Amino acid sequence: MSILVVGSVAYDGIETPFGKVDRILGGSATFISLTSSYFHQPLKLVGVVGNDFADGDLNRFKDKNIDLEGLQIDNSGKTFFWQGKYHFDLNNRDTLDTQLNVFEHFNPVIPESYQDSRIVCLGNIAPALQSKVLDQVQKPDLVILDTMNFWIEGARNDLAEALKRSDVLIINDSEARELSNEPNLVKAADAIRAMGPDVLIIKKGEHGALLFTDGNIFSAPAYPIIDIFDPTGAGDTFLGGFAGWLARSGDYSNDNFRRAVVYGSAMASFCVEKFGPERLFDLTAKEISERYAEFRSLSAIPVQIDELI
Amino acid sequence: MSILVVGSVAYDGIETPFGKVDRILGGSATFISLTSSYFHQPLKLVGVVGNDFADGDLNRFKDKNIDLEGLQIDNSGKTFFWQGKYHFDLNNRDTLDTQLNVFEHFNPVIPESYQDSRIVCLGNIAPALQSKVLDQVQKPDLVILDTMNFWIEGARNDLAEALKRSDVLIINDSEARELSNEPNLVKAADAIRAMGPDVLIIKKGEHGALLFTDGNIFSAPAYPIIDIFDPTGAGDTFLGGFAGWLARSGDYSNDNFRRAVVYGSAMASFCVEKFGPERLFDLTAKEISERYAEFRSLSAIPVQIDELI
Repeated sequence: MSILVVGSVAYDGIETPFGKVDRILGGSATFISLTSSYFHQPLKLVGVVGNDFADGDLNRFKDKNIDLEGLQIDNSGKTFFWQGKYHFDLNNRDTLDTQLNVFEHFNPVIPESYQDSRIVCLGNIAPALQSKVLDQVQKPDLVILDTMNFWIEGARNDLAEALKRSDVLIINDSEARELSNEPNLVKAADAIRAMGPDVLIIKKGEHGALLFTDGNIFSAPAYPIIDIFDPTGAGDTFLGGFAGWLARSGDYSNDNFRRAVVYGSAMASFCVEKFGPERLFDLTAKEISERYAEFRSLSAIPVQIDELI
Repeated sequence: MSILVVGSVAYDGIETPFGKVDRILGGSATFISLTSSYFHQPLKLVGVVGNDFADGDLNRFKDKNIDLEGLQIDNSGKTFFWQGKYHFDLNNRDTLDTQLNVFEHFNPVIPESYQDSRIVCLGNIAPALQSKVLDQVQKPDLVILDTMNFWIEGARNDLAEALKRSDVLIINDSEARELSNEPNLVKAADAIRAMGPDVLIIKKGEHGALLFTDGNIFSAPAYPIIDIFDPTGAGDTFLGGFAGWLARSGDYSNDNFRRAVVYGSAMASFCVEKFGPERLFDLTAKEISERYAEFRSLSAIPVQIDELI
């Protein structure tokens, strides 16, 4: 079982009410692969960085046993850079600067040693590129797709093609409503699953997540976080934990999809405790297990003691 | 064990995307008492209606074994009337008309036969009146308080007094943030519980509810409703189910508060299936038990099968 992760590798400048960093490792493939590495190794990463990417940062991936054969180093320009500032309540942010740089012409090439990956994680990139990745891999067990409003609005046909070929779609509630043109999330889920993915996860930020599979809905709670430090990458981290657990267990039952959602939620709850992906470097397996257990007790409904009948 | 319910008894005019009624039974005490009656009888109701209140509607309460000794009939005017129209997504509504009528000078008088009630439900009325009710009852086991932005903004001192004397506060997330002046709900809960109520429930509409007790947080899912017909009274119905279960069981443990939140959520999920309180007249105990079970399976997190350590 191996995991292929395709997405952006970037530098981010982040300001939150609690502090500011000018330049920190970022990008969807970064968060996904670092997170998955806690569950399953090696991870196979495909992305592109520029001539300014630090050797020290390459080593941070290698230390986590992340295979960088598919990471292109494009010396013609700089690494994708994003800068943003979060508002007081952390639910909204302003993008202050976006420099696509070498990412603008990113053309994912899947090395031969990656092509038999069993789980393919397609981070939030142009849907046409997501399909291009799928053209290059042999038949994986599971294709997990992320996308965003930008592609739903601007590349709907490409997205429809990518959706037909994916097994799991992970989006947030506003994206689900926009993609389906349906305000009710249960109806939206039916409509989206008819577009291709058997499994749909709708992330609701501070309200948890919903998992839709055949005839089954799971409502996962959000971890009650007192001090959210920086929300950057939480969604990608969710995807990484979800995929990592499935790769580790190799079990695609409804119950195990539920576990995967909880591991994803648990990892995201750690991610937001520090700037960028910093928290994803020093986690322990014990911490992850304990947080899973906290999710269980948070949402446990006791049995009925009197059935009223 | 008896339940005292104080609040409004009203007629509502409701328009939703699915239909329109010009005049239907409404008011917080109506929804709370009808709901509680499924769990525990008799209910003791205190409220006021005007000279236009139909005998047939009085009988609908009596049929549910709701004690109306405390229902004042004020022949000097008409019954409280509210008219509203819900938007397409049902999350927002416009108030089209509010005629307080006899409710404007409502002065709750608690009959002697009500004064030893063990659970006191204070529906959303002026906090000064809520305190006035508490002046008239002997020491109840539990005082459950509802309030709204209007009182948080306009009667903060009175509300502080009522809060000091209550055991459970049930409000929504925006009200919790406004009352505590704190965007983070976990911190908001700490601040609000310091104002008096040991138990705080934060309702989050389509996102479920949070229960805060000493050192314990419970996240209850929302029932995934495909066809919400009319949201009117859902919050009061939640309170009625919550209080009803606690009265029936007489158990104030953390686990049992969780059950009460689930019964409240289950009853609210029924309420929205029809106009006004109509669905609360034809429920069966079996339906309620089955919905409780659905809530359990909706949020059940399987045990870890591999603790990663």
